[in-house]
Amino acid sequence: MSKLVIVGTVAFDEIETPFGKTGKILGGAGTFIGLAASQFNVDAAIVSIVGDDLPKEYLDLLSSRNIDISGIEVVEGGKTFYWSGRYHNDMNSRDTLVTELNTLADFNPVVPANYKDAEIVMLGNLHPAVQLSVLDQMDEKPKLAVLDTMNFWMDSALEDLKKVIARVDVITINDEEARQLSGEYSLVSAARKIHEMGPKYVVIKKGEHGALLFNNDNVFFAPALPLEEVFDPTGAGDTFAGGFSGYIASTKNISFDNMKNAIIQGSNLASFCVEKFGTERMVNLSKDEIKQRLTQFKALTQFEIELD
Amino acid sequence: MSKLVIVGTVAFDEIETPFGKTGKILGGAGTFIGLAASQFNVDAAIVSIVGDDLPKEYLDLLSSRNIDISGIEVVEGGKTFYWSGRYHNDMNSRDTLVTELNTLADFNPVVPANYKDAEIVMLGNLHPAVQLSVLDQMDEKPKLAVLDTMNFWMDSALEDLKKVIARVDVITINDEEARQLSGEYSLVSAARKIHEMGPKYVVIKKGEHGALLFNNDNVFFAPALPLEEVFDPTGAGDTFAGGFSGYIASTKNISFDNMKNAIIQGSNLASFCVEKFGTERMVNLSKDEIKQRLTQFKALTQFEIELD
Repeated sequence: MSKLVIVGTVAFDEIETPFGKTGKILGGAGTFIGLAASQFNVDAAIVSIVGDDLPKEYLDLLSSRNIDISGIEVVEGGKTFYWSGRYHNDMNSRDTLVTELNTLADFNPVVPANYKDAEIVMLGNLHPAVQLSVLDQMDEKPKLAVLDTMNFWMDSALEDLKKVIARVDVITINDEEARQLSGEYSLVSAARKIHEMGPKYVVIKKGEHGALLFNNDNVFFAPALPLEEVFDPTGAGDTFAGGFSGYIASTKNISFDNMKNAIIQGSNLASFCVEKFGTERMVNLSKDEIKQRLTQFKALTQFEIELD
Repeated sequence: MSKLVIVGTVAFDEIETPFGKTGKILGGAGTFIGLAASQFNVDAAIVSIVGDDLPKEYLDLLSSRNIDISGIEVVEGGKTFYWSGRYHNDMNSRDTLVTELNTLADFNPVVPANYKDAEIVMLGNLHPAVQLSVLDQMDEKPKLAVLDTMNFWMDSALEDLKKVIARVDVITINDEEARQLSGEYSLVSAARKIHEMGPKYVVIKKGEHGALLFNNDNVFFAPALPLEEVFDPTGAGDTFAGGFSGYIASTKNISFDNMKNAIIQGSNLASFCVEKFGTERMVNLSKDEIKQRLTQFKALTQFEIELD
């Protein structure tokens, strides 16, 4: 079993979709990544920061999934990061209504001593300076460092972001972000430019259109499972990243062929995430359901043309 | 070897893309379908109409591919259907500059006597009344009738279109058209509604995002090959349909599993079509190139997760 260090937000989300709206519920990239990774046989720790307004049951939930929470700083009298957003009818775009950084504004991540030797590091979407700090605290370069980021950091902290990008093995971003980062419209060309910035593996997420994994001239594609309805996309990208890194950690195999499997596992878990609000589906998910849906992914993509 | 009847336009196209512009060149759905189908071991005939302004070398080209052209009526003194269009920078949308129906305005398709027993019928994008007439001329219901159509006919000839849809086994349309035809946003729901209109198999083309094949609860997905650049998308959908129907005809197997292969073969051929203007790439395409790219499709999509 590999150790997996996850850095990411543990937060309050408040979500509105055409199907309804939530109150303040558990959210955050770190949360979604952790819940997804915990579906595999890993020794995972989340590094994060919250206020003491976060219900204890949320942290207990993470602990109950065998996620080490000693790296989640609880600031007495502090308020937890809060995000509120509203999805449009097509569910592909959303408006952020409120962002309150709160304790996140002064986040100095501290990797627990017994996780500084982790083989796998998953840098969830956060300020790149925070991500850099986590990498700096590791005893040695991890076997695999995976970075998730977004256009917000390209606009506001590009120099720091480039430093992180130069130090990771895998980057996961969406198609528009890949275009912005590379200045290339074609995703094939974009991936090549991003390779040159550091990462040997470039994962480009296309939402309902699936995800591409590039490793120089090798390309793999995983579709999103065609769903009757997407109920709430919040956390799908984080769940994908958590499934990816968790599967890699549990199999201890960073070959390209195993990354294909990891991409499928991430897509599989993300297909559940969007079925209910927030983390609801992810905390009520059985191994049998996961396996059954993997069978669907196989049926969806595997074919048998004989190439004589 | 199965017989394959193709009805579709043989036309002049004039195309402008960000990469350049052509003069009047060979185009038309029937042409692209025929060229794609002729890559397989089929006895194909094109039913169409042209004017005597169409250079004889264009018809000779089709003949040289073992495509029967006795069903292509040449109207003396008539002018061939002409379409001209300009693609936008993203290549995903285009403006039609000119459409001259010419001889196509009075097209009464005549299926050659020795093809009325064809096992497979491919109805290329045309007025649904023309498509119906071809079905009516067959000796008996073909083993597989495949329909390609577009939103233009939904807007202008919906009742006739519904009659054709009710009589075919497979329909291929793009995602927006599937939504328009069904009134459903989700493609899963759209496919279900379209099943109810007749076709047991619904193929939804998503352009650069690949294609979905639905057969009730069975779903298969084929990605488009990630390309560095799309040079000219003209004919890609027709080439896909031609590859699909041609492969089915050559294998004489209309099972869902073989349709998966047919979808891959169609996607594979379409990936070549877009590399050059018009039919240029399709007429200079070797069996080895096709096989080599099928290997790429396998690498792109196949994975090995053990489901113990």
